[in-house]
Amino acid sequence: MTQIIPAIMSGGAGTRLWPLARVANPKQLHALMGERTMLRETLERFSSAPDVFQPSMIVCAEGHETIVREQLADMDEPPRLILEPMGRNTAACAAVVAYWVAAEAAPDSLVLLAPADHLVSSAAAFADAVRRAIPAARDGRLVSLGVRPTHPETGYGYIRLGEPIGDVFEAAQFVEKPDRATAERYLAHGGYLWNGGYFLFRADRMIAEMERHAPEIAARAREALERGAPTAAGGLLLNAEAFAAAPSDSVDYAVMEKTDQIAVAPLDAGWSDVGSWASVWDASAKDEDGNVLIGDALAIGSSDCLIRSDSRLIAAVGVKDLVIVAAGDAVLVVPRGLTQDVKKIVNRLADLKRHELL
Amino acid sequence: MTQIIPAIMSGGAGTRLWPLARVANPKQLHALMGERTMLRETLERFSSAPDVFQPSMIVCAEGHETIVREQLADMDEPPRLILEPMGRNTAACAAVVAYWVAAEAAPDSLVLLAPADHLVSSAAAFADAVRRAIPAARDGRLVSLGVRPTHPETGYGYIRLGEPIGDVFEAAQFVEKPDRATAERYLAHGGYLWNGGYFLFRADRMIAEMERHAPEIAARAREALERGAPTAAGGLLLNAEAFAAAPSDSVDYAVMEKTDQIAVAPLDAGWSDVGSWASVWDASAKDEDGNVLIGDALAIGSSDCLIRSDSRLIAAVGVKDLVIVAAGDAVLVVPRGLTQDVKKIVNRLADLKRHELL
Repeated sequence: MTQIIPAIMSGGAGTRLWPLARVANPKQLHALMGERTMLRETLERFSSAPDVFQPSMIVCAEGHETIVREQLADMDEPPRLILEPMGRNTAACAAVVAYWVAAEAAPDSLVLLAPADHLVSSAAAFADAVRRAIPAARDGRLVSLGVRPTHPETGYGYIRLGEPIGDVFEAAQFVEKPDRATAERYLAHGGYLWNGGYFLFRADRMIAEMERHAPEIAARAREALERGAPTAAGGLLLNAEAFAAAPSDSVDYAVMEKTDQIAVAPLDAGWSDVGSWASVWDASAKDEDGNVLIGDALAIGSSDCLIRSDSRLIAAVGVKDLVIVAAGDAVLVVPRGLTQDVKKIVNRLADLKRHELL
Repeated sequence: MTQIIPAIMSGGAGTRLWPLARVANPKQLHALMGERTMLRETLERFSSAPDVFQPSMIVCAEGHETIVREQLADMDEPPRLILEPMGRNTAACAAVVAYWVAAEAAPDSLVLLAPADHLVSSAAAFADAVRRAIPAARDGRLVSLGVRPTHPETGYGYIRLGEPIGDVFEAAQFVEKPDRATAERYLAHGGYLWNGGYFLFRADRMIAEMERHAPEIAARAREALERGAPTAAGGLLLNAEAFAAAPSDSVDYAVMEKTDQIAVAPLDAGWSDVGSWASVWDASAKDEDGNVLIGDALAIGSSDCLIRSDSRLIAAVGVKDLVIVAAGDAVLVVPRGLTQDVKKIVNRLADLKRHELL
């Protein structure tokens, strides 16, 4: 069976998970649930299905090379690393990956572009979904994995499914983040999936569509790769001048929403982007009071809280629906319904030039 | 003018102010507001009125001698220390002080028994109130300073004022902690004062009333003093065997509510026992959002909170009426209306044998 090269995008910071996630130590490098870091969980998801996936490669920030390598140190064959000198969003990343795979493997190699910081509870169901998408990808389609919604989420984009193409579907429509009522209609309808950020494609087909719909990104990414240089530790560092010149855009906007070569494969594998502390609470096992207590946490007369400490005791009494996180040199307290506002703290700290806290 | 020996009772732990107040480092040894510790503020209150007060003496726990002496190290003449081998409440403390002053100074010396951990915003008004109570004390009365209520507090005992005796009053009635409606009537009435825990008396008169109404406490306290021994640092350590045998009772119950020799002097000096984090918030200056922020604290979209950190940043977003305190190896989060429940945390930690956190 055709095997796929997973390209793990580990470039984000996940600042809505401050104070755990920091610029120098982002979300995907932490164990959010369980023992392993999200990056290692992601790698494991692929290596657990060797009939579908070849060894992974990772694209991460230049500044994270050391900490990423530390997390991979015990692996027999650590993944190849491509290092971005700065973040240019996912389109440039996808282009770099496509050019690199076309040159290093083969132009028609299959690539799965995958975020490093998502939670997927069933690796087997994930591999099944990808397996079903392979024929369409082989045929030249750019296949987006669409997550089967579990609730009327207003924070994600949706894809409306069109006609079936084998085991996958045409994409009839991309929809921006909907309002609550619309999200509820989508959920009831059943034919709307969340845009999960996973893309399966043949390297040469992504290159062709990128060159057609986002030629500037394609050209700069290709140049950044060609002018790239090896790092002392064995990574491939993209050329900063060229990569900086690549327009910053998402692969969704730059390519997927423009090409007529898209397909959608439904994914129903217990997915969460754990993009906020509220979604961490959602995805976690709770005690009888609805609390998620991680580390040295004591809750008395409290319910439906997430309390997480990396060292010192956090003691809460008489609180409800609250998120309390102590990590490193900072403590966060925010109502569970307002965890999107954690960004306000990060922005304020940046304004205050408290860089040691970012 | 007759001068008074202030006897500062520094024996409590103030566990409702956990995690700042700890067994080994109790409330009165912290700077709760401003720069100086409560003990130093209390000493300053007396030394600032040398026409009324002689140098103070301090009664504290044996285990606190070192840390108390550290706080007094920069004083020209540090106060004499009497050390309790264990806490026996205020009656035994009052008896020890009375016997000690009668022997070391003179039987008719005036003593002001004063808690170390109260806030008094006007030292001048405090000295005035004491000054007005001196004639009654000289005449043999045990004079309680009664705090003029500022709100319908249900957490304190009240004293109903009787007939005037010079500048002070007879005590017509002691009232246990009232319910809310009763407290509101007392406030409207005006003739009910809070029992503030300050007592002015002649040493020989306290001894006489203690021997009459609480003879066992008097005998054990006297024995503990007579069998006391000097510490290496110069304190007087009460005899543990004798002091342990003294019944544990408050001076209010043991003597003041039984004797007919009581008088009450109104005190209107900006008093607070700062007995909970809510009362710390009450007594503190607030920003325009009603927040009290002490140390490295950041509040966004938050109001009427007390946020206090001794080191790490505490960042709160979107919270209201919340107390967040980080001190040492612990973080407390509790609604401002439930700060009495902090005791539940301390009790639970004791049950869990987490002695390092107490």
